[in-house]
Amino acid sequence: MTLPFKIQADAGPARQARIHTAHGDVETPAFMPVGTAGTVKAVPQDILEDLGAQIILGNTYHLYLRPGHELVRKMGGLHKFMSWERALLTDSGGFQVFSLSELRKVKEEGVSFRSHLDGTSHLFTPERSMEIQIALGADIVMAFDECMEHPAERERARASMEMTLRWAKRSKDYFEAHKHECPWGDRVIGRSENQNPNHKGHEGTQKERIVDNAQPRAVVPRELATPLPRPPALFGIVQGGMYADLRRESAERTVELDFPGYAIGGLSVGESRAKTMDMIAAVLEILPKDKPRYVMGVGYPEEIVQYAAMGVDMMDCVLPTRAARHGLLFTSEGRINIKNARYAQDQGPADPKCACRVCSRYTRAYLRHLFVSAEPLAGVLNTVHNLAFYLDTMRSVRHAITLGDLSGILSGGVSLT
Amino acid sequence: MTLPFKIQADAGPARQARIHTAHGDVETPAFMPVGTAGTVKAVPQDILEDLGAQIILGNTYHLYLRPGHELVRKMGGLHKFMSWERALLTDSGGFQVFSLSELRKVKEEGVSFRSHLDGTSHLFTPERSMEIQIALGADIVMAFDECMEHPAERERARASMEMTLRWAKRSKDYFEAHKHECPWGDRVIGRSENQNPNHKGHEGTQKERIVDNAQPRAVVPRELATPLPRPPALFGIVQGGMYADLRRESAERTVELDFPGYAIGGLSVGESRAKTMDMIAAVLEILPKDKPRYVMGVGYPEEIVQYAAMGVDMMDCVLPTRAARHGLLFTSEGRINIKNARYAQDQGPADPKCACRVCSRYTRAYLRHLFVSAEPLAGVLNTVHNLAFYLDTMRSVRHAITLGDLSGILSGGVSLT
Repeated sequence: MTLPFKIQADAGPARQARIHTAHGDVETPAFMPVGTAGTVKAVPQDILEDLGAQIILGNTYHLYLRPGHELVRKMGGLHKFMSWERALLTDSGGFQVFSLSELRKVKEEGVSFRSHLDGTSHLFTPERSMEIQIALGADIVMAFDECMEHPAERERARASMEMTLRWAKRSKDYFEAHKHECPWGDRVIGRSENQNPNHKGHEGTQKERIVDNAQPRAVVPRELATPLPRPPALFGIVQGGMYADLRRESAERTVELDFPGYAIGGLSVGESRAKTMDMIAAVLEILPKDKPRYVMGVGYPEEIVQYAAMGVDMMDCVLPTRAARHGLLFTSEGRINIKNARYAQDQGPADPKCACRVCSRYTRAYLRHLFVSAEPLAGVLNTVHNLAFYLDTMRSVRHAITLGDLSGILSGGVSLT
Repeated sequence: MTLPFKIQADAGPARQARIHTAHGDVETPAFMPVGTAGTVKAVPQDILEDLGAQIILGNTYHLYLRPGHELVRKMGGLHKFMSWERALLTDSGGFQVFSLSELRKVKEEGVSFRSHLDGTSHLFTPERSMEIQIALGADIVMAFDECMEHPAERERARASMEMTLRWAKRSKDYFEAHKHECPWGDRVIGRSENQNPNHKGHEGTQKERIVDNAQPRAVVPRELATPLPRPPALFGIVQGGMYADLRRESAERTVELDFPGYAIGGLSVGESRAKTMDMIAAVLEILPKDKPRYVMGVGYPEEIVQYAAMGVDMMDCVLPTRAARHGLLFTSEGRINIKNARYAQDQGPADPKCACRVCSRYTRAYLRHLFVSAEPLAGVLNTVHNLAFYLDTMRSVRHAITLGDLSGILSGGVSLT
């Protein structure tokens, strides 16, 4: 099994589980901070570790354009390039091509587009997306899907869903043939499965790998040299627009392709929250219970709690990081806009119930001053707090599932106490 | 004595000393990172502490305009406002009025100017500068001086120097009458000297102060509640343009006014490095050896080493922080522009001899990627490294003085090993 997923407790449809990746375990339900271009914007990696992030995202589209996936591969893969020894997931690039690039043209072969950085022409196909993601070397790779406009007519949604299914098959075929080429996979997996039939388990493999990686004057982050010998895993993506029956059909046929995990894409694109939840509920009925289920691109704190309660295991969103840079802070008392004059002399922390390094040291008055002065530290501190809030929220959700009761966290809003 | 200064070792004119402030000791020679608007740009305070910064600067001009010194006073002073429990020095505002503001008019009374932020009209006088700096509550306050244009004719330089001397006297008179009004001074000093004649030393004072400061839900940083009962100190500033005899006269007459420390201002304004050194040498001959000597606004790493060797105790400069945000890194191998394509695949750290948190974790390739992608983390990491380099440089200088020999560090350039 490429991606062991162990359910440790449940509370109704919600489950608390553990995903074993080559770069450590991920406890679910998990919120994954978005690290678009190989960096969770404004946050040093050691602070992400301190916050308890066990997995973060990288964006295939951004990293392909800059610095380029071949450079990242040469540098030992994204883990080593950005000095992040924990788990990484890369998206397929489909959503960014849809939302950021210019002159996008979708054909059966793939999507041609122009870079938002310099206008150069590029083509993403399912095979190309796999090639790039394997070069980046994430632990979890996403199938290449079409991200459709919203709203869309039923026939348009069906056609898009059908193509996403064909692309999922092509993604899987290429991925299975090439996954051992990932920057860490070809050494660890290759060695343990082929070159070194006599190896005595992890101890020996790790040691050899450290030697393998040694370079003059190279930076060797603390734990980077000890991944477990486990290949990356490819997730399929369910589409189908806002049509529950298409969503169910997409889920059934994606499951037939047999992936180690499944994502629900194309949501949170402008539809109502009730509609989002309906689509998720429809798909969760179909997806196998023994594999991780990932809703892409969500959401507000109360949403991620709700979806986790429905049985979703993984979520990601730019909201905590992007909002932070605009001065929006998530707190146990609701959202606050730190720019507001009412905080100018507020000696309290951003969130009185939060124990993060920002809330235990700085006042709202200071955070407001930093923000209105456009100080770079504003982005750093606001982002650290928002991520702490999201990660603590999911920690509370996991704890509640372990206790078998999510009612408190669902009815009383998000409580971090 | 308001600012105890204990020389612990010397090597020729250089000395290794310790300044006792109300917010901890400062080992000299010291480089002081610049925290313009209540933040050393892009660096969280805990990282500054880890880097070993014992004193940082605040800019009177910036803090006066935003968030306003009265707000800072209400928030408990700059230490508490920015959660920095170590020593703080504020400049007088004279240099920023000179370099940043519009429509500056200098009269005997003071300097009228328009804010660079919103064009509003303001007047800085020696008394006003003292009032603002006392409200901010720095441990070391600077006399209000005229920062003259460069180059300047001799008579212009003399006239400016004379006015700076008159302003120094006015600064001192106001400061001595009001220094106990500083946000921490009126409590600790007031209590220990007036309200509480029976207090039994630090233990009791500290305890009472913690109670005094308690506020509902207030953020109480770890060590902020324990300053020693010691008043702020005012430094005089030597001016005189690029005329050695005027500099000497300014030094003599400033010393006659009797300050607990002396700064040399108006240097590094476009003159040659040889000229800067001549001016410093001329003034150091005059300044008393038993008080701290501070050269304002310098410099490159090799300069601060040189000036420390000449007997300078304190220096500050925006160079390490500002250059970092432009991708210029200071290293034991010289300056490098991290933007350069040659670093795109460089797996080494920014400085192979540096043990800072950036150099021990990230590669030049990654730092270059962050910078060319305009990622906010670039500014954070580059600044942390540059400050580490400057602070480690001064640590090496102090160590060399303790050993009685600066020749190695002067001839071999800056070595951090």
